[in-house]
Amino acid sequence: MTVSGPARPGAPDRAGLARDLTRLLGDGKVLSTLGERLNYRYDAIQFGATPLAVVLPESTADVVAAVRAARQAGVPIVGRGAASGLSGGAAPAQEGLVISFTRMTRLHIDPLRREARAQPGVVTLQVSEAARPHGLVYPPDPASFRTSTIGGNLGENAGGPMCFKYGVSGDYVKALEFVDADGEVHRLTRDAYDLAGLLIGSEGTLGLVTEATLRLTTPARYTRTLMSHFAEVGQAAEAVSAAIAGGAVPSKLEFMDRACVNAVEDYLQIGLPREAGAVLVVDTDGDDLETVEHELELVEQACMRACGTVRRAADEADSAALWRARRSVSPALGRIRPQRMNEDIVVPRSVLPDVVREIERLGQASGLHMVQFGHIGDGNLHPNILFDPRQDSPEAVHQLAHEVARVAIRYGGVLSGEHGIGSMKVAFMQEAVDPTTLAALWDVKRALDPGMALNPGKVLPQPEASDA
Amino acid sequence: MTVSGPARPGAPDRAGLARDLTRLLGDGKVLSTLGERLNYRYDAIQFGATPLAVVLPESTADVVAAVRAARQAGVPIVGRGAASGLSGGAAPAQEGLVISFTRMTRLHIDPLRREARAQPGVVTLQVSEAARPHGLVYPPDPASFRTSTIGGNLGENAGGPMCFKYGVSGDYVKALEFVDADGEVHRLTRDAYDLAGLLIGSEGTLGLVTEATLRLTTPARYTRTLMSHFAEVGQAAEAVSAAIAGGAVPSKLEFMDRACVNAVEDYLQIGLPREAGAVLVVDTDGDDLETVEHELELVEQACMRACGTVRRAADEADSAALWRARRSVSPALGRIRPQRMNEDIVVPRSVLPDVVREIERLGQASGLHMVQFGHIGDGNLHPNILFDPRQDSPEAVHQLAHEVARVAIRYGGVLSGEHGIGSMKVAFMQEAVDPTTLAALWDVKRALDPGMALNPGKVLPQPEASDA
Repeated sequence: MTVSGPARPGAPDRAGLARDLTRLLGDGKVLSTLGERLNYRYDAIQFGATPLAVVLPESTADVVAAVRAARQAGVPIVGRGAASGLSGGAAPAQEGLVISFTRMTRLHIDPLRREARAQPGVVTLQVSEAARPHGLVYPPDPASFRTSTIGGNLGENAGGPMCFKYGVSGDYVKALEFVDADGEVHRLTRDAYDLAGLLIGSEGTLGLVTEATLRLTTPARYTRTLMSHFAEVGQAAEAVSAAIAGGAVPSKLEFMDRACVNAVEDYLQIGLPREAGAVLVVDTDGDDLETVEHELELVEQACMRACGTVRRAADEADSAALWRARRSVSPALGRIRPQRMNEDIVVPRSVLPDVVREIERLGQASGLHMVQFGHIGDGNLHPNILFDPRQDSPEAVHQLAHEVARVAIRYGGVLSGEHGIGSMKVAFMQEAVDPTTLAALWDVKRALDPGMALNPGKVLPQPEASDA
Repeated sequence: MTVSGPARPGAPDRAGLARDLTRLLGDGKVLSTLGERLNYRYDAIQFGATPLAVVLPESTADVVAAVRAARQAGVPIVGRGAASGLSGGAAPAQEGLVISFTRMTRLHIDPLRREARAQPGVVTLQVSEAARPHGLVYPPDPASFRTSTIGGNLGENAGGPMCFKYGVSGDYVKALEFVDADGEVHRLTRDAYDLAGLLIGSEGTLGLVTEATLRLTTPARYTRTLMSHFAEVGQAAEAVSAAIAGGAVPSKLEFMDRACVNAVEDYLQIGLPREAGAVLVVDTDGDDLETVEHELELVEQACMRACGTVRRAADEADSAALWRARRSVSPALGRIRPQRMNEDIVVPRSVLPDVVREIERLGQASGLHMVQFGHIGDGNLHPNILFDPRQDSPEAVHQLAHEVARVAIRYGGVLSGEHGIGSMKVAFMQEAVDPTTLAALWDVKRALDPGMALNPGKVLPQPEASDA
């Protein structure tokens, strides 16, 4: 180590951090002016503390040097990809060092092993684009996959519409390289103990992923799409439960409520049914056209029995248009209110109708602007509270979010399907996880990050809060 | 707690253990005579220490009571299912308490959620048998699935022939209940931090699984089978690499060398090609018959290009006979020598021909009786050293096993595909895992089992051995 000056607990050498980093890594990899640093305090949904310095590493060795310098200076470290996350995972809870992986974009496709080796800054969609000439794809498809990065996806164990049938990001990880809190480099496969699995979804609180080996698959030969609209949300939820119980395994099964549909229609003007209480967009896929069409038929019948109006996509262009509607929910909602609190609950499919109706009632009673959409196939709902901090009380927003989380827990669900816990839901973890298990999670955290330097304030409620 | 007497470190209250357990659980759940205890010191491959007492719990509460009593008495705890494991995972390395889960066999199928809730003593095959009337199956199929238990499968993260296409046991776990080293009960889903994933494959060294919620799937509509034999093992490995590179994704892809084939033929007498240097048995499956047959065709062509002789199964009965041959390898080998050292290496598919040939040469040079078979599709080979401790030197056996492990590591492979590390391969972990990662694994172990009470001597090389 060439960093000068001892670590001074309680009095971090903040000025020294940017200076030391610049000396270690060179000028071009360190951002230290306030204007630059302000750009690294948020993710897609949450503002955090302005970092003391930002590093843009180009290699694992750069990450090691940055982690060691931060440790020397006694400041926390937050990893960051494209910052498209929806739970505050990449928004620093404390002043410290942000390591932004956007320059670590090396990607190698090995068609024989059917795998991709990707640095964390590789954009999600690029993996499939690079794999496609070899007849392969990378299925995980978070809504932001045109901008989100593999590092961020693994940090949050991100899902997407395809995950109902094909699994989430972590299901495609064969091996990981990560840098730990001491700046040591580890290379892991998925063996006992599955430390790689522990890192996935831990939001950079246990280590920083510097390379991932991802499993690729062959794409389905056939896909069919339909959209169905319903007078009210409970009917849509009933149709979903009935279709799946009847034997359909759609590859995508997405839901939007009336407020969502109208927001998207305002934004895109593509003729969505504004009067509908709820809309489903459904894909079935597979290698056997007869099976694919039979499954679509099962979904169609279930929708019609739940009093839905069904429209099948005529062709691929029509299907793409329907999916563009669903993918535009986030930007469309951003036009209604400047901020939103985006929940990510997962509940058993059998209770979906009750949960959707109960959350709708909570929203109406609160007087706040609330919408619901999500990957309804696996019970993953995104109730969103849209608010303007100049008009709406933050306490009322937090209160409503808390009530929604409680509904999920009461119905046997969990708080995060695909966005992670981040800072946004960390306060609800106390109720979602029993105290002995929470203690075990803290034991693991302390074992791998004894100095509590890695992304503090995320995933686990702080020990201080344990008697709150 | 009603257990009398304090824990006395260094002087465990051994006599007190069986007495306390009997008082807590009743006579019928505790085995304490020497004759009874001797039956619980082994798995399918390894003898261990005779336990001080054996508990046969009937509920999670019984497990909690047993763990607390063992802790009080200061003795280690080893969980055990059907003891069909092949790495010594269930064979106690030290005298202590064995918790045998064979009475915890409650199984509930939920067809709407497509899941099974199973206690650890449920036999693997029974999950699929109970699911089949609902049109569902549980894909993981370790060779011993007629006797192995879900608890044991999860402890070792067991695989089987189907795992090449469908994944290993851990890929089907949606939720776990486990009892920790303090006797606390935890209920986990697969969220951040994925503690459930960490427990899977940890061989009871981090906690004892008392219930698992397993994902069920729909079975493929069509299956086709072929067998191909080759003059020498390298050709078979080349055929496999070429078939997969050509686009085939067989659901099973199994390999046996000449010694295996002859052992099985001696045992079953079903007309296997005794003169062959290597035999492959391959299934393709799916919902589209054309695709299934096309994939079989790809495999057939690859086999023929590698100079193999191909025989397609005529019908389901013929297919079942071919698979019976592969499933009979273990009992057949047991007739040749009384003991065997069963390795479980995984290497990249592209180096399979070299690895298979190199291990064959090592076996020949050693003068020991060695055979090779395995799930060659994912590079998972089982080199087995057959030996008679009355004739063969244990050092020579261990030396050869170590050389085989080194071949795997040198070619970028790992030591365990599906059997776990157990006690059998724990000594090789030092070379397979880099020291910083090994230290991180130990940190996790100490965090969850600070008293080192859970299955000591398994998975991780003891700290004392770290300078060996």
